[in-house]
Amino acid sequence: MSTLIRNAAVFRNNSIVENQNIVIDGKYIKEFPDNPDPADYDEVIEGNNMLCLPGLVNTHTHVAMTLFRSYADDMELMDWLQNKIWPAEDHLDDDIVYWGSMLAFAEMIRGGTTAFCDMYMFMDSCAKAADLAGMRGNLARGLAGIGPNGDKGLAENIELFKNWDHAGDGRFKVMLGPHASYTCPPDYIRKVRDAGMKYNIPIHIHLSETQGEVDNCLKEYGKTPIALMNDLGLFDLPTLAAHCVHVNDDDIRIMKEKDVHVAHNPTSNLKLASGIAPVTKMRAAGITVGLGTDGASSNNKLDMFAEMRLAALIHKVKDSDPLAINALEALNMATVDGAKCMGYDNLGTLESGSLADIILVNREGFNWMPGFNSISLAVYSGNSMDVDTVMINGKVVMRHKELLTIDVERMKREVSRVTDKLFSFAG
Amino acid sequence: MSTLIRNAAVFRNNSIVENQNIVIDGKYIKEFPDNPDPADYDEVIEGNNMLCLPGLVNTHTHVAMTLFRSYADDMELMDWLQNKIWPAEDHLDDDIVYWGSMLAFAEMIRGGTTAFCDMYMFMDSCAKAADLAGMRGNLARGLAGIGPNGDKGLAENIELFKNWDHAGDGRFKVMLGPHASYTCPPDYIRKVRDAGMKYNIPIHIHLSETQGEVDNCLKEYGKTPIALMNDLGLFDLPTLAAHCVHVNDDDIRIMKEKDVHVAHNPTSNLKLASGIAPVTKMRAAGITVGLGTDGASSNNKLDMFAEMRLAALIHKVKDSDPLAINALEALNMATVDGAKCMGYDNLGTLESGSLADIILVNREGFNWMPGFNSISLAVYSGNSMDVDTVMINGKVVMRHKELLTIDVERMKREVSRVTDKLFSFAG
Repeated sequence: MSTLIRNAAVFRNNSIVENQNIVIDGKYIKEFPDNPDPADYDEVIEGNNMLCLPGLVNTHTHVAMTLFRSYADDMELMDWLQNKIWPAEDHLDDDIVYWGSMLAFAEMIRGGTTAFCDMYMFMDSCAKAADLAGMRGNLARGLAGIGPNGDKGLAENIELFKNWDHAGDGRFKVMLGPHASYTCPPDYIRKVRDAGMKYNIPIHIHLSETQGEVDNCLKEYGKTPIALMNDLGLFDLPTLAAHCVHVNDDDIRIMKEKDVHVAHNPTSNLKLASGIAPVTKMRAAGITVGLGTDGASSNNKLDMFAEMRLAALIHKVKDSDPLAINALEALNMATVDGAKCMGYDNLGTLESGSLADIILVNREGFNWMPGFNSISLAVYSGNSMDVDTVMINGKVVMRHKELLTIDVERMKREVSRVTDKLFSFAG
Repeated sequence: MSTLIRNAAVFRNNSIVENQNIVIDGKYIKEFPDNPDPADYDEVIEGNNMLCLPGLVNTHTHVAMTLFRSYADDMELMDWLQNKIWPAEDHLDDDIVYWGSMLAFAEMIRGGTTAFCDMYMFMDSCAKAADLAGMRGNLARGLAGIGPNGDKGLAENIELFKNWDHAGDGRFKVMLGPHASYTCPPDYIRKVRDAGMKYNIPIHIHLSETQGEVDNCLKEYGKTPIALMNDLGLFDLPTLAAHCVHVNDDDIRIMKEKDVHVAHNPTSNLKLASGIAPVTKMRAAGITVGLGTDGASSNNKLDMFAEMRLAALIHKVKDSDPLAINALEALNMATVDGAKCMGYDNLGTLESGSLADIILVNREGFNWMPGFNSISLAVYSGNSMDVDTVMINGKVVMRHKELLTIDVERMKREVSRVTDKLFSFAG
């Protein structure tokens, strides 16, 4: 299967090259020919007035939580968790997670997101939905060591690894998902680490999301969550740490030394009043920082255009510097840096040999006029609804805004059904 | 002319009422009948699965600056102004401002914004474009007293008042636009105030946008910009103050006492690294705070859904309070509070007797599922592209995403032409 994208404006080497042709062969980008003959390709996609970007990478989310969208907003964190989210989560099952995930994939593809890192429950169902939708994903079973199900969860996570790592023509990787320092005591973290070492599985964990979490960790262990996890040896495994809002200089030194990658979630950190992560400081230290939406219950959408824009905006005020995180940096965080967070070195760029996760963004909207700088336009005035066509692993999954892998009408019916099932307890 | 909107979910009295009918008679909302006969009305609009909101109010912008969109981003403020914006503004003319404004109105209507407060140059052309587009607007000639054109500008602003105040079937009001304390010395502010008193014209001014502005004002006059303007008697006129990022408790007391209204511009204040305005404090003091986009050069879009969302997010972190500015408050700031900023007491609500500025937002997108709380959905996961239909002053200006008052193809050609004309000097 070969595809030609013709006459698009292509984001390459940190700039936009107009009138480029891209050839995709199988799941890889092959070349950028000057005068291709359309007859030579199985499929030809016209790119006139389209901006061609690497697919956007959502490095931290809980996809099935789309079902909690607008269920409980503007609440105190513990009130929200204890009285709304946790009671509802008790009622999840495979059926519910499958359709909640499918809704997330529809929303993500629609908005140009081609890859995601997830941590949740019933992950086999999440994986099945992602496989059908054609998404690229890193999957982790959320693990808590404080309840009775720590060992069961870890066993499930290892089973997930055996079943799904490298599956889907290489679209899936599996990570271990120890939830956080406050839900995973040291002994449990050691167990997770040992399993990771045995099977060679990377880590996806929440770290230093709130000041309270850091304060409690200091009180209990005399160390920050970052230092604690480092001392427990967790960072000897490749680690993706979500949030890292409250990290100090020592934490940053550790993270750099151990090549810990960061999933920065600007909307979620604002919505839950967690704070603004020191992203420019972490980047200056050489740490790879990707962007994420977190779950739809703390966002409330899965819109990487919104996250790029917010990332480019909030650090300017945090640092009192209008040059902090410029448009190009935000775009790179949402693409190539996110791909690194997912463990890829051939994803998130449009180059020969890269995996063909590609989006075409229509530049005909009023928000794209005039067209001085398409990088600025994409980040500051772009809209997820401008995305026209989405390719993942060389396969077109959305064309002219129509989803090709998901039966939208059925999905809507099923989402309505499982939402009723999930929340029947509340009524 | 009478219009019936049928079976919509209507935002009334701070909540959503499903399956409502609205009758619009002329430019006013007339009633909400239970069982209307469609045959009784000139036009019937089906509202199934639509959320009916008051039109969004953009309380501070410079519409013709759409032409600067993506021209100069991620720069230091003075470098940006002195080397990019001001040289380009020297080349503005009526033709350029007309089409730059028309692009803004297309973008605003497309995204559900029905009213705007503007301060700029060649305002007669802006008014003509707004009149044709069917927008509601408060127009001010931007006035600087430090250059040679202070008196000429004031005379133009008074002329604008005579020509446009209450024009367009009441859609237009004219305000005086003294730019800021650092561009308008006390003697000039007194002149502006005297003109305002003579003709009964309200004020639109930038105040306390940056810490540097406040520091310089304190150094020069021994007073904050707010205190200075109060002592000069400016606040004896109804005043809309844009930004108010750096205001102290005394400033807030003065603003409340003089009923100064505030245009809060979350994106612009972040993008220019100005800071985060103490909005919850001002609101707690009883000050009316609306939302604005500022010009497209510091945003870069005119998208009130983006501003609502950002307003609901950033104050949570500023105040370390996840309950600061909830979704309902953000929606009210973008509608009824914005209308108050524009001097209306019968706009921004969906009630009998209110002016019929109404938008219908399609709730069929993935970002609206499931549908627990449409207020939360509109603010946190809504998208300006979800807007389906827009009515201003009782007249439908967009139907099923098609603009009815603006010839889009011609507008695009003209925008391209005037952009070339405007920036020919640069290259």
